[in-house]
Amino acid sequence: MLNTIAFINEMDKLKAVLRQTKPTGLDRYENSAEHSWHTAMAAMVLLQDAPEGVDALQVLKLLLIHDVVEIDAGDVFTYDESARAAVAAAEEKAAVRIFGMLDAPLGPDLLALWREFEAGETPNARFAKALDRVGPCLQNLEQQGASWVKHGISRQRVLAKNAAIAQASPALWDAIKRRIEAADYLKDE
Amino acid sequence: MLNTIAFINEMDKLKAVLRQTKPTGLDRYENSAEHSWHTAMAAMVLLQDAPEGVDALQVLKLLLIHDVVEIDAGDVFTYDESARAAVAAAEEKAAVRIFGMLDAPLGPDLLALWREFEAGETPNARFAKALDRVGPCLQNLEQQGASWVKHGISRQRVLAKNAAIAQASPALWDAIKRRIEAADYLKDE
Repeated sequence: MLNTIAFINEMDKLKAVLRQTKPTGLDRYENSAEHSWHTAMAAMVLLQDAPEGVDALQVLKLLLIHDVVEIDAGDVFTYDESARAAVAAAEEKAAVRIFGMLDAPLGPDLLALWREFEAGETPNARFAKALDRVGPCLQNLEQQGASWVKHGISRQRVLAKNAAIAQASPALWDAIKRRIEAADYLKDE
Repeated sequence: MLNTIAFINEMDKLKAVLRQTKPTGLDRYENSAEHSWHTAMAAMVLLQDAPEGVDALQVLKLLLIHDVVEIDAGDVFTYDESARAAVAAAEEKAAVRIFGMLDAPLGPDLLALWREFEAGETPNARFAKALDRVGPCLQNLEQQGASWVKHGISRQRVLAKNAAIAQASPALWDAIKRRIEAADYLKDE
């Protein structure tokens, strides 16, 4: 039971990892723990219309653990492609360390789950990865393009990066896409 | 799709609701969104040994939504029994408003799920309520009894309040109980 307790305590560290967006209405950056919760909540309202082959329990598990590696590897801005590539090895090492705190079969199962999310090739992982974009995208739309404007991300890049939302919900992506297209604070390429 | 977007945006507000404990290693109070995530993560490691009749998907859903009513009703300290009783009506009203943002069947389903958690009478709700205690209890044990000491909660009350953890995992409660019994910072009645 000691390693279970150590793992639960270890999870507190994800609350210290800050992201690039702020929760709407708050003047502070979001941490990866509350983001993970928000992402799982978004899944709960979108799972009812999920594509065939998507399993609700697996999706929630994927979203709950998807950012745990940031305890060691930190958060990387979605639009910073070179930093994302550079951090991949550190994230894999982090996953081995963190999920390795738990005995088999649970530890190896969670490690496999995290790798499934990263690879993004199964229906569940594609759905979960699409959901991972929804919260930050809506936050930027509510906040005059906050992190998009701050980092000079063009409308075309915002559209390209978030188009994956359609894999979770074509109707949601349609609504979001129209708001991105109409946003006067985004610069065009 | 507009009410789905409004609901996902509304969830940002739970990140502003502060609790009585601090994440270990951080000098700030925990918010109810990151607490909800932590609680669901604790469930993920304890579900493998869950009592018969406990369903993993339902437990994760219960834990993800269990504090959403605090957006309107605020967080009440676990040991403040009179405040907890006083806030019950406000929480019910909050649940009706917040889950009422979503169309049927989803909105009514989530409202029923929240009421199931509150009542704590089903195997899933009992398991989830037990899990809700694990994170804060471990945080206090890691932090020399932080909120217990601050509010003058006796060892006997800490033991009585957290004994429900045994309903999720007798082995975990056994380990936690021994630490509470040995804690020199707790006063006895």
